[in-house]
Amino acid sequence: MASISLDNPAVQSYLFYSGVLSLKMLGMSSLTARQRFAKKVFANEEDASSAKGVVKFDDPDVERVRRAHLNDLENIPVFFAVGALYLTTAPDNDLAVNLFRAYAAGRILHTVVYAIKPLPQPARAIAFSVPCFITILMGVKVVMHYAKAF
Amino acid sequence: MASISLDNPAVQSYLFYSGVLSLKMLGMSSLTARQRFAKKVFANEEDASSAKGVVKFDDPDVERVRRAHLNDLENIPVFFAVGALYLTTAPDNDLAVNLFRAYAAGRILHTVVYAIKPLPQPARAIAFSVPCFITILMGVKVVMHYAKAF
Amino acid sequence: MASISLDNPAVQSYLFYSGVLSLKMLGMSSLTARQRFAKKVFANEEDASSAKGVVKFDDPDVERVRRAHLNDLENIPVFFAVGALYLTTAPDNDLAVNLFRAYAAGRILHTVVYAIKPLPQPARAIAFSVPCFITILMGVKVVMHYAKAF
Repeated sequence: MASISLDNPAVQSYLFYSGVLSLKMLGMSSLTARQRFAKKVFANEEDASSAKGVVKFDDPDVERVRRAHLNDLENIPVFFAVGALYLTTAPDNDLAVNLFRAYAAGRILHTVVYAIKPLPQPARAIAFSVPCFITILMGVKVVMHYAKAF
Repeated sequence: MASISLDNPAVQSYLFYSGVLSLKMLGMSSLTARQRFAKKVFANEEDASSAKGVVKFDDPDVERVRRAHLNDLENIPVFFAVGALYLTTAPDNDLAVNLFRAYAAGRILHTVVYAIKPLPQPARAIAFSVPCFITILMGVKVVMHYAKAF
Repeated sequence: MASISLDNPAVQSYLFYSGVLSLKMLGMSSLTARQRFAKKVFANEEDASSAKGVVKFDDPDVERVRRAHLNDLENIPVFFAVGALYLTTAPDNDLAVNLFRAYAAGRILHTVVYAIKPLPQPARAIAFSVPCFITILMGVKVVMHYAKAF
């Protein structure tokens, strides 16, 4: 019976960086809230009235953070899944650890250059592409490894 | 070899409440569809023409349900991941079971006060914050437990 | 101790189709980018200026792909979770394999009829409903199996 051990360094790396990315994603809500309260723009009547603000859906600073958050939703849950699947394919430990590390670094950088300190392209394009490429690599490895399950 | 047993009460609690939250999230699509058909507003030409409605992106009732759904997407997949990671850190069983229970209760309440029966703040703020805090707690435990995998 | 074996055909099927769906989801970003560069419409100033385009949030072709992507976010991460939970309930192997297969086929078809070659309804309604029903089925099985963990 093939198995995955919690003592494996690649598994521990996945668990660590998935924890880091979970916290990073949850932090996006605070970034949005900070912008909403600073600019007094909200998405719901009950929020605007309790904070003496207005309902507004096109504040550029709020929407920028929300786009960064949405980009997280498009990528990080896929990493949670495909990172775990990848561990079942008996990858090289050093390679796996470095992929997890680079993925997390790229996604943190993506948030910085998108939502915290906007930089000219290609800063965000690079911070998006490296993690995206890593998840594609893992996905291809998984699909090839289990191809007979088609 | 460290391991996670399906016979563990905390694991069974995670599996049960993750199942409940999966069904809850899938139910958001029905809530949106109900509003769309009631108000005859749709996001696509092919939907509007088949249901004799119009394409419209700013109906307040539809958009409210969609914001509640997006809030689920921002939080519940993180719970699926971080809840499972947390189980690998050998948490106290009673604590873990109560965290899972409170998380699910909070997220269900969030949907109720956001999309079903809108209430004045701080109803939604509380229903959002308690589950959010629980996932942060689990994330911090995971990151500290595997810190040497940095 | 109950356990899940990587040698189990249903488990391998889940791993394979989750890998396929991960790659499919990641591909949505390319579909959006293709439309953005073809129509020269972008969501950020720094993207528009580097690609000599404009900032615009209501291009119908771009928004259609983004709606298809959002629909993936609303459904596929739930599948990643509930598919794995379902495997812990000792399902019939043949049934599980066919559910995973039908789920993946449905979601791929959904992308095709929504974002690649838009078709009149009920094409998309069917491609949405079949996978949705499969995840509900799995969710109900999970919740019933672990009901004593309430």
